Amino acid sequence: MKPLQNDLILRAARRQPIERTPVWMMRQAGRYLPEYRAVREGRSFLEMCKTPELATEVTLQPVDLIGVDAAIIFSDILVIPEAMGSDLELIESKGPVIHNPVRTASDVANLKVIDAVSDLSYVMDALKMTKQALDGRVPLIGFSGAPWTLLTYMVEGASSKTFRYSKSLIQDHPETAHTLLKQLSFAISDYLIAQVEAGADLIQIFDTWASALDPVHYEEFGLQYIEFIVDSLKILDVPVIVFAKGATGSLDRLSRCGAQVLGLDWTVSLDHARELTGGRVSLQGNFDPSFLYASPGAIETEVKRLLDQWGPGTGHIFNLGHGILPDVPPEHARALVQAVKKQSVRP
Amino acid sequence: MKPLQNDLILRAARRQPIERTPVWMMRQAGRYLPEYRAVREGRSFLEMCKTPELATEVTLQPVDLIGVDAAIIFSDILVIPEAMGSDLELIESKGPVIHNPVRTASDVANLKVIDAVSDLSYVMDALKMTKQALDGRVPLIGFSGAPWTLLTYMVEGASSKTFRYSKSLIQDHPETAHTLLKQLSFAISDYLIAQVEAGADLIQIFDTWASALDPVHYEEFGLQYIEFIVDSLKILDVPVIVFAKGATGSLDRLSRCGAQVLGLDWTVSLDHARELTGGRVSLQGNFDPSFLYASPGAIETEVKRLLDQWGPGTGHIFNLGHGILPDVPPEHARALVQAVKKQSVRP
Repeated sequence: MKPLQNDLILRAARRQPIERTPVWMMRQAGRYLPEYRAVREGRSFLEMCKTPELATEVTLQPVDLIGVDAAIIFSDILVIPEAMGSDLELIESKGPVIHNPVRTASDVANLKVIDAVSDLSYVMDALKMTKQALDGRVPLIGFSGAPWTLLTYMVEGASSKTFRYSKSLIQDHPETAHTLLKQLSFAISDYLIAQVEAGADLIQIFDTWASALDPVHYEEFGLQYIEFIVDSLKILDVPVIVFAKGATGSLDRLSRCGAQVLGLDWTVSLDHARELTGGRVSLQGNFDPSFLYASPGAIETEVKRLLDQWGPGTGHIFNLGHGILPDVPPEHARALVQAVKKQSVRP
Repeated sequence: MKPLQNDLILRAARRQPIERTPVWMMRQAGRYLPEYRAVREGRSFLEMCKTPELATEVTLQPVDLIGVDAAIIFSDILVIPEAMGSDLELIESKGPVIHNPVRTASDVANLKVIDAVSDLSYVMDALKMTKQALDGRVPLIGFSGAPWTLLTYMVEGASSKTFRYSKSLIQDHPETAHTLLKQLSFAISDYLIAQVEAGADLIQIFDTWASALDPVHYEEFGLQYIEFIVDSLKILDVPVIVFAKGATGSLDRLSRCGAQVLGLDWTVSLDHARELTGGRVSLQGNFDPSFLYASPGAIETEVKRLLDQWGPGTGHIFNLGHGILPDVPPEHARALVQAVKKQSVRP
């Protein structure tokens, strides 16, 4: 295998000099691409995840078709709960459903203690195959959901606006919540180490539902477990991105969790976030994904605005503030990537 | 009519000395109360809003039954769009639907220019009747949606996760968006002035969808219009609360918009928010509404934590970080209010 020909994202993550800003998009291997929909046709999301050839094929699509500076392995954050015994159904239009939610101490005790390498070997196979196929063109990102976010899906059993069951659990039975969070943290840590061994050059931890908790409860039930996981990855020398959506009020604390990069949603400006994080970390984001509905000209203007907001220094990875939406025209995604590549060139 | 016997919330809003922290709850006149459901039975939400006797009755319920320190007039933020010509249906379980969304310059031109006093006289009647019935027991809060939030409902036609049409409008036809926002701002300003003349002692502006925009677009399409409205209310000597949900990244800017109080959701701690707003404003919030599912004992502990976070100074109005949820037991709401009253007494 060739060495990496484009390591911009790794250098930006480590705040080393870069010639231009690297760019990728969350959910870049997804439904907005007709080529993705063609592979997906007649297959379930989980079947795609569990078939390394298919996962590899769609992981490469945005690299070839859109020109992003990193591939992110096609998978889902809920493969860990599934391996632990959650009866999972992924309905892309509706969100995930878990038919046997975890609500009590005995539900937690009945969960399977997994071995990431063997129980999730299909993810490692997909990573190895993708790494081979990329042949050093761009880095490969591995990922996992954060313990708190995985807990909410396992406990609620479906997407939730109120997090009724998760909130009752942490308030009235905190010890049960902590047992589950610990079990998840060990599994995630092993899983991410295995991903790096299988070829991931960079790791992202998604805490999609960070905003469900106030900062004090987020510290106790979210952040301390992320910190444990990040710590366990330190020996590996791969940068870690933590994306805690909606957690602007915890950015300062997050910037001290050991991760090299923090992901941002669009509700905080890059310069304000840099201030709040004291320049301790690189920042990833934070183009509003809904602005990809606008015309390519308007997209280019908005890209320029974000690049100017950051300025010429290293430490910025261009991305959306959340996943790309399924009805965005692919040429708009290309316009964004091209604009970043063109307009961020350092003199 | 008697003078106000309990003006704690007005003093807290003006950062004047208080004997204890005032407390009320967003959506306190709502479905969690069996007494509310009894009045509501067989009637539409809009019928309730438009019948001053019924609006008065349910506005008073939480004062009598839960013991809050302020009444907020029973109404809906969408009465202004409805008066302007939106064909509105309020389905409490599903969210509002507007059957004739505004999408083009000509749609905007066809909107009715309203006269708040006559077109929304039913709100003023409800305020006068409630003021009379309260007989000085607690202050009465009037309210409106903010221009940006009202625009999103009018343009999307329904609750939205992506704000596809609103975002396209502001990116590709900003002048049309500004025309609509200006028209809304004039209407809201007149509407709020009329509410004060009808008896409101305090005004809250709800910008529920502030978080849909990044800070730069929020400045242009949200905040500048709130500033205009707040400015137009200055002559009246009533405190104004601005609640821009999810806008932690704009708190500093919001603290300079002229409002005496900012509402907070639960994703930022009270002390961090005080830092971000430089002590320029009072703060309202920010108990996580989902924690009302927990036991009364756990609720009391959480109340104490928030009160301790603020400390003994004035300038804090206790509230939830969002509306009370419909399936919360009323005794839990009472536990919250009692805990604030008991634990916040100044020595």
